[in-house]
Amino acid sequence: MTYCCGILVADGLVMIADTRTNAGLDDISTYRKLHLFHGEGRHAIAIATAGNLSATQNVINLLTEGVENHEAPGPEAPGVTTIDQAPNMYAVAQLVGRAARQVRRIDTDAYQQESVAFQVTFLIGGQIGKERPRLFMVYSAGNFIECSPDAPFLQLGEHKYGKPILDRAVNYKTDLYDALKIGLISMDSTLKSNLSVGLPIDIALVRRDTHAFEVDARIEASDPYFRDLRERWSAALRAAHAAIPRPPYGPEQA
Amino acid sequence: MTYCCGILVADGLVMIADTRTNAGLDDISTYRKLHLFHGEGRHAIAIATAGNLSATQNVINLLTEGVENHEAPGPEAPGVTTIDQAPNMYAVAQLVGRAARQVRRIDTDAYQQESVAFQVTFLIGGQIGKERPRLFMVYSAGNFIECSPDAPFLQLGEHKYGKPILDRAVNYKTDLYDALKIGLISMDSTLKSNLSVGLPIDIALVRRDTHAFEVDARIEASDPYFRDLRERWSAALRAAHAAIPRPPYGPEQA
Repeated sequence: MTYCCGILVADGLVMIADTRTNAGLDDISTYRKLHLFHGEGRHAIAIATAGNLSATQNVINLLTEGVENHEAPGPEAPGVTTIDQAPNMYAVAQLVGRAARQVRRIDTDAYQQESVAFQVTFLIGGQIGKERPRLFMVYSAGNFIECSPDAPFLQLGEHKYGKPILDRAVNYKTDLYDALKIGLISMDSTLKSNLSVGLPIDIALVRRDTHAFEVDARIEASDPYFRDLRERWSAALRAAHAAIPRPPYGPEQA
Repeated sequence: MTYCCGILVADGLVMIADTRTNAGLDDISTYRKLHLFHGEGRHAIAIATAGNLSATQNVINLLTEGVENHEAPGPEAPGVTTIDQAPNMYAVAQLVGRAARQVRRIDTDAYQQESVAFQVTFLIGGQIGKERPRLFMVYSAGNFIECSPDAPFLQLGEHKYGKPILDRAVNYKTDLYDALKIGLISMDSTLKSNLSVGLPIDIALVRRDTHAFEVDARIEASDPYFRDLRERWSAALRAAHAAIPRPPYGPEQA
């Protein structure tokens, strides 16, 4: 399982991904799922992955090795086969979708023989040139949606535990580091309730118009800030429900 | 969809259920999913239901109309066919399981012709006689598990949004009205993130050894306590994350 989220605010973009992979509960490992692509002064793009590890690694490799281009050319430039050539984030989303379909074409028969479902999803966030920062989610079929300011986040994988805090706390005007903090709280809720999502966590932060990763860090279990955040959040939740009055539905109140 | 939870603490039991049913997003209605069975001075039992409404209503009716008893008799008294005859909560869970299998036997062929899956689950909480209060979850196959003090709650339906607060805040020693309050916060998180779970909410509270429903109430959207709880909880969450320091991962902190 996996939990990743991308948060898109006016000042830029935050991407957060766990690193746990598992082939059954008895075969757990740590793999990077947050992949960064940087072109100095031109682009900063972060791609978070979920699904079959071999397929997502394959897609990530194809983005620099070159994706086949025999599908009818889309609005991206006809010659675009690598992420460095993409003129905008829409073209990157198309490219990832095409790479996912290419891997699916090659792998599907063998997957079916092993009764394994082909399942990959991607969050793609970043900025290219003068275009605004954008955030997309690409599905297994290679189709995709774009995040909008009305609901300025997208999630991959085990998303439900961490969604309530995002629903409540994030909007498009949220400060960039507050967005990172809320994303980490969302990750904490997921870590607490689902063993198949695990530390360390990779985080990336892109400030608008810098075309650079202002934050590119890994948070280990021993990270003092994240430990403190988890403790403070737990304590605050306890205090929060303790401060709510007793329900008035009993006989003593009647 | 549905969200119900049962919380079992030393002092008794809380049961909470939403009332939304839907046959597609365009066909939404309100049905009671929390069913109470009371025998003065003898038993107080609450059963929350999820799944096909016709099947769960059928099971609830059979509990008083009489369940077939041609399965090999279990540890419940051989003649037990109604909930009033059950000598203990284990026998009630068996009875519900048997009723679910009876409905499944009758309905399955027709369900398959309509390509509808037979899917029912039940939370059964209560106390009979001198036995301690107990809480069970019965699955579609009629098998069941019992809640233990180590994780003193069980959930039905759309459980993930509301699980983090239960994981953090409830233990077996939690006060009974605190348990009700935390259950309502858990319901609030679910209402906020999933449209297919909806108000009003039915709640029941059984205090140990009273064999009565100390609380048996319906919370409507206009309920002032629940509105206040939702507002306070939202405000507390905003304050809680605002009070956590800014993440130190940026360049200014390096």
